[in-house]
Amino acid sequence: MTVLISDAEVAAALDAPATVDAMREALLASYHGRLVAPPRAAVQLGGGRMTLTAGHLVGQWYGYRAYDTFGHPETEQVVVLHDGRTGAVRAIAVGEELGSRRTGGLGGVAVDALARPDAATLGVIGSGGQAWTQVWAAAAVRPLREVTVHSRSAARREAFAARVRAELGIPARAVDTARAAVRDRDVVVLATTSPTPVLDAADLTPGCHVNAVGFKQRDRAEFGPDLLDRAAVLVSDSPAQSRSYVPPMLAAEPPYAARLGDLGSVLAGSAPGRTGADQISVFCSVGLAGTEVFLLDRLVRILAPTVSGSSG
Amino acid sequence: MTVLISDAEVAAALDAPATVDAMREALLASYHGRLVAPPRAAVQLGGGRMTLTAGHLVGQWYGYRAYDTFGHPETEQVVVLHDGRTGAVRAIAVGEELGSRRTGGLGGVAVDALARPDAATLGVIGSGGQAWTQVWAAAAVRPLREVTVHSRSAARREAFAARVRAELGIPARAVDTARAAVRDRDVVVLATTSPTPVLDAADLTPGCHVNAVGFKQRDRAEFGPDLLDRAAVLVSDSPAQSRSYVPPMLAAEPPYAARLGDLGSVLAGSAPGRTGADQISVFCSVGLAGTEVFLLDRLVRILAPTVSGSSG
Repeated sequence: MTVLISDAEVAAALDAPATVDAMREALLASYHGRLVAPPRAAVQLGGGRMTLTAGHLVGQWYGYRAYDTFGHPETEQVVVLHDGRTGAVRAIAVGEELGSRRTGGLGGVAVDALARPDAATLGVIGSGGQAWTQVWAAAAVRPLREVTVHSRSAARREAFAARVRAELGIPARAVDTARAAVRDRDVVVLATTSPTPVLDAADLTPGCHVNAVGFKQRDRAEFGPDLLDRAAVLVSDSPAQSRSYVPPMLAAEPPYAARLGDLGSVLAGSAPGRTGADQISVFCSVGLAGTEVFLLDRLVRILAPTVSGSSG
Repeated sequence: MTVLISDAEVAAALDAPATVDAMREALLASYHGRLVAPPRAAVQLGGGRMTLTAGHLVGQWYGYRAYDTFGHPETEQVVVLHDGRTGAVRAIAVGEELGSRRTGGLGGVAVDALARPDAATLGVIGSGGQAWTQVWAAAAVRPLREVTVHSRSAARREAFAARVRAELGIPARAVDTARAAVRDRDVVVLATTSPTPVLDAADLTPGCHVNAVGFKQRDRAEFGPDLLDRAAVLVSDSPAQSRSYVPPMLAAEPPYAARLGDLGSVLAGSAPGRTGADQISVFCSVGLAGTEVFLLDRLVRILAPTVSGSSG
């Protein structure tokens, strides 16, 4: 029997620590070759594109997320989990929560792996759903004592700060400029829909870690080369997917490509992460394929631990 | 709210006449450019492939079918229907019935358009699910007075004949050879998993119409060039998809490509179909993209006619 899972059920069952844990396991499974996570495929549908991003945890499950780019007001994504032995569909999640929490969870893993151990302040540019899950996940891996937020709409950034205070219990304030949001911050999140830089890398404080979640392509990016030039540590959750962007991802082109590392390698201890307290580290989030399915599998185990399989 | 639809619900609600009608409308919508039906996309997952075939009925809906090639015993396909205005997911069908009836329905349209008006006998090679829905749909467009069936397994062909008698009320018999199955038949269905020819085209009677449902690629086809050489009328449900096969589809290569017509054009009256009682006609079924979603939309309207939209 297939279980249909709504946004409300995802939100009720998947907290930030469990999500970050699952994404850490997914990155390690990918690093060790157990999670097959190829670049996505898309079909042009006239006015929009339908995209498939799939994964296969060998011996356990396979599945995919499908989403479109029509930009309709109530658009919903679909994540499908197949049993790896029988092929039957175990669960389908419909909505936006699973994908958004997945991306937040990957960001949380990056903060945990790369931010300074004593990181306690976070500045975020952007006040949408992706900005929210980044802060939500970061708060699960570092005890944050203050969040600053900037976005173009004063009303939205004030609401975002209020939500951080109310739901995460962290002091938060909305600020007028991007510079004010990132200044003296241990962790910075870029989660905008801007195709042009929203940040001057010179405004970052030494030792800062940056999660970049929005556009990051050549001539269409929320940050400029100055951020990559300042980065002593530069990783993504999927170098392979990073190289498949059209137009190319800024960090996957020379001179940065040679330095672009794999977050999974850092987690596995086979590549260095931060090696100095004053280094700037940058995580280019591309959304490793299969991680939505990984998270759906985890959610199914949380919802029905006695029914699901034994391995994690 | 998303409706989850099982194989049992598909089987109970979608009869052959409704399915053939829906597929006729889908082919005409594609011909008139209202149904956007691009070639499919696939992602390699290690041991299998996940394939996405999508469609968009402009102004009404968009969606896709996703299926895999792992060959697991209980594998299930997923068909997703999005509302074309809001983007919300209206319905998801999980299982094999919808796709199988879709292919049967396309075959029924081809028989209706291309077989002789007085066609009354049908021979089928193959006794699986695809063979079944072909006969099921053909019986909705011609009053069949006898069905002959051949497949390698005597037990399975006998069971198939018994099912035709029981469920369709048509006299049916299993026969020992492919030749015996197709001799003197007005309609012939090829629905095997064979990569090599199962038919000698010389065994076909003049005036016969053939639906070819199984493999049809160069060096991997259930029929040989002799069938195409005998065909005076040669069509597929999607010439565009026919040209996208790798390796190429036999009928989409010289010298056949120039003669390969579009079933939708025949339905629209802009291309001739059968022009003589003794002609052999051949339908190469490729599964026009979007037709599974078209059929799911039809099913949702049948299940909840007061809730769904007004247009057809």
